[in-house]
Amino acid sequence: MTNINAGTILSTVESDTRDLRVTWADGHVSRFHHIWLRDNCRCPSCLHVQTRERIHDTYGIDPNIRPEAVSITDEGHQLSLTWPDGHQTDLPGNWLRLRCYSEAAREERRVRPTLWGSEILKNLPEVQAGDALETDEGLQDFIQKIRDYGLAVVRNLDCTEGMVEKLAGRISYLRQTNYGVGFDVESKPDPNNVAYTAIELKAHTDLANWESPPGIQFLHCLDNSAEGGESVLVDGFAAAEMLRQRDPEAFRLLSEVELPFRFIDKHWDLRWHAPTISLSLQGDFREIRYHAALCAPFDLPHDLVEPVYAALRSFTQILRDPAHEIRLKMGPGDVIVFHNRRVLHGRSAFDPNSGRRKLQGCYVDCDDAWSRLRVLKGENTN
Amino acid sequence: MTNINAGTILSTVESDTRDLRVTWADGHVSRFHHIWLRDNCRCPSCLHVQTRERIHDTYGIDPNIRPEAVSITDEGHQLSLTWPDGHQTDLPGNWLRLRCYSEAAREERRVRPTLWGSEILKNLPEVQAGDALETDEGLQDFIQKIRDYGLAVVRNLDCTEGMVEKLAGRISYLRQTNYGVGFDVESKPDPNNVAYTAIELKAHTDLANWESPPGIQFLHCLDNSAEGGESVLVDGFAAAEMLRQRDPEAFRLLSEVELPFRFIDKHWDLRWHAPTISLSLQGDFREIRYHAALCAPFDLPHDLVEPVYAALRSFTQILRDPAHEIRLKMGPGDVIVFHNRRVLHGRSAFDPNSGRRKLQGCYVDCDDAWSRLRVLKGENTN
Repeated sequence: MTNINAGTILSTVESDTRDLRVTWADGHVSRFHHIWLRDNCRCPSCLHVQTRERIHDTYGIDPNIRPEAVSITDEGHQLSLTWPDGHQTDLPGNWLRLRCYSEAAREERRVRPTLWGSEILKNLPEVQAGDALETDEGLQDFIQKIRDYGLAVVRNLDCTEGMVEKLAGRISYLRQTNYGVGFDVESKPDPNNVAYTAIELKAHTDLANWESPPGIQFLHCLDNSAEGGESVLVDGFAAAEMLRQRDPEAFRLLSEVELPFRFIDKHWDLRWHAPTISLSLQGDFREIRYHAALCAPFDLPHDLVEPVYAALRSFTQILRDPAHEIRLKMGPGDVIVFHNRRVLHGRSAFDPNSGRRKLQGCYVDCDDAWSRLRVLKGENTN
Repeated sequence: MTNINAGTILSTVESDTRDLRVTWADGHVSRFHHIWLRDNCRCPSCLHVQTRERIHDTYGIDPNIRPEAVSITDEGHQLSLTWPDGHQTDLPGNWLRLRCYSEAAREERRVRPTLWGSEILKNLPEVQAGDALETDEGLQDFIQKIRDYGLAVVRNLDCTEGMVEKLAGRISYLRQTNYGVGFDVESKPDPNNVAYTAIELKAHTDLANWESPPGIQFLHCLDNSAEGGESVLVDGFAAAEMLRQRDPEAFRLLSEVELPFRFIDKHWDLRWHAPTISLSLQGDFREIRYHAALCAPFDLPHDLVEPVYAALRSFTQILRDPAHEIRLKMGPGDVIVFHNRRVLHGRSAFDPNSGRRKLQGCYVDCDDAWSRLRVLKGENTN
C-alpha cells in the first residue's frame, strides 16, 4: 500500500442503523446509507453488463433495507455486503471513494468556471487550428478552454468555406436551428436577423428565444477588410457575479423573473420565457439570456415592471463596462469559439462600402461537447 | 364599432406619474408603464423593418421617461405618444390589448396542459397518418394534440423503414442524439441501451442525462408479433400534480433537489444534474426526469439521501398506479408520439422467440414544434 492509494483503501467499517461509517487509510471518513449501497450494487443483475445502465429498480427499494453482513475484502480494496435475501454486493474502494458524499468531497467535485474581465486579452485562451483538427491532445485542450473560460480563440484555420463546420465537427455533430446548420454572417439585402446587417450589435446571447439555446458558437472570419466590425466579448457569469455583489436586489430579480423572448418571420414563431440569469438549485450559474433584439413585450405583474427595467440597466452597466469586455478585430483564419449561454458577443458597426466582412458560423451543444471532453480524458469508465 | 371589436377600441386614456391608464370600449382597464410603452415602440428606427427584431436598446431607456403628449387616434384604434425628444410612438389598439399585463389578462394567456389518467384510453388523441402527412389542417391538429395532451397516436402510417422520419419531418427537422438521428428499437445482440433488449422497461423519460433532453419522441411500430411488448404511457405532469396534493414534502424535494444522471459507453459520457420535477418560476410544470437506468449514484447531503429515496418511492407509487397509466399493444402502422419530458413511456417484457418486435423512432424538439403550430395557426404576426 502506497500513500498515493491510501485514499482508496478501506481501513475500518462500522454499521449504524441507517448507514455504514467507512474510515479510509488516509483518515477520511465516509458515510454511506444502506439504501444507497443497495441501490448502487454493480453485479450483473443490477447493472446491465453491456449497456452499463442500471436494471435494478432505484425507485422501489425497501426503505429499511440493512445488510446482514459487511466486510472489507481484497486486502482493503473492496467493500462486501450481503443482503437479507442473500444478494451480494461488492464495491471497489476506488469506485466508492470517488462517490463519497461528505460535504468536503461534494465541494471538491464542484466544477467552477474561471471568471474573467478585460485582463484576459493579455493572455487569451488560444489554440492552433492544426492542433485541434489533427491531434487528440489539441482537441482536448481546445474543449477544456471552452469549458473553463467559456472562450477559445482558434488561429490559422484555412479560409475555405465550410472549414468552421469541420472544426466544430471535431467536437460533435452540429446543432440545427432556424438559421440552418451553418450560417454566413455578412451584410445581406434581405436580412432575417440584425446580425445580417452592418449595424452595431451590443453584446448579447444568441437565440435567447429558444427553450434550449445552442451551447457553443463558432464564428470563423473569412474576410474582415471593412472598417469597423470589431468583435466584443464579455463573460456573462463574471458580470452576473459582480451584479450579485453590487446590487443583490437586481440580481435576485433577474434570476427569479422570467422574461419573454420571441423571434418571428414567415416560417418561424419561436417563443420562450426565461430568467436573465439562470442558476442551478445550488446557486451555480447555468446560463445568461440577454438580447434586446429578441425581447418580447414584458408581461409582468404591474409592480415588477419598473424594478425589472432597473435591474436590467444595472446588469447592463456592468456588461458594457470596458473593464469587463474584450475587443478584438478578427483577421482571416481566426475563429472565436464561445459558450453562447455564458459569454456574450457583439460587434461594432462596420462600413460595408469600405471592404468586406464575412464570418461563417455554426453551433455544437454543450451536452455533447463536455461528453467528448470526458471521453478524451478517459473519464468514461463506470 | 361592433361588440366583437370593443376589446381593442380605446375609450379613454389618463396619464399618471409612472404609467397610463387605458380604458377599453368593453370596460376593461389596462395600465401600461411609460418605460414599457417607449420600449415597445414599433417605428422603423425601434423595430427593424425586415427582421422585425428590436433595434432599440431595451436595456438603456431613461427610467424617468414620460410622454409629453398622449392621444387616442384612428377612431379609437390607436394610441399615439410623443416623447420629450420628439420621437413618435403609435401603437395599434389590437396589438396593445393582446399585451395587457393586468393580472386577469396574464392569467388568461397562461397555457395549461390537459392532464390525464387511464380514462384517456377511451378517447385517445388520435390522428390519421394521411391527414398529418398531406394537409395543413391535419398537421395542425396533430401538433395541437401533442401540445395539449403530451400524446398523439397516429394510425395507418406505411410500414416502410424511414417513414417515421418523414412524419416527424412534417413538424420540423430531426434532433440528433448519441443514438443518432433515427433509431431502431428491437432486441439486439450488442445493445448500448436497455431498450435494445427484450426486458421490461418501467415507464421513464428518455435521455434524462442530457442538459436538454429531446422534446417530442416518435415510435413507429413496424412489427409487434412477439408475445408481450405492450406499451405503457403515463402523464408525468398529472402524476406530479397528484404528488403535490398527496405528499407536498416529497413534491418539494423532487422539485428542489437535483439528481445526477449519466450515460456511458465507448464514445460517450453524458452527465447532467436536474430535479425530478422541474417547475417554471411561476410553478408551472416544465419537465420530468425519471429513469432508473440512467441514475448516477446520488451525491446528496447526508441528511437528504433517505428523504429523497422516500420521495421517489412516493412519486413512483402514483406513476405505476394502473389508474394513471394506459397500456396498449401497438400494431404495425401505429405511431405513438409524445412529449418525452412530460409523458413517461415503457413496455412490458416480450419474448423474442415468439415473434418479432420492431419499432423505429426519432425526436423533434419542442421549440421548433410549437413554432410550427403557431405558424400553422397564423399567430406569427408581430
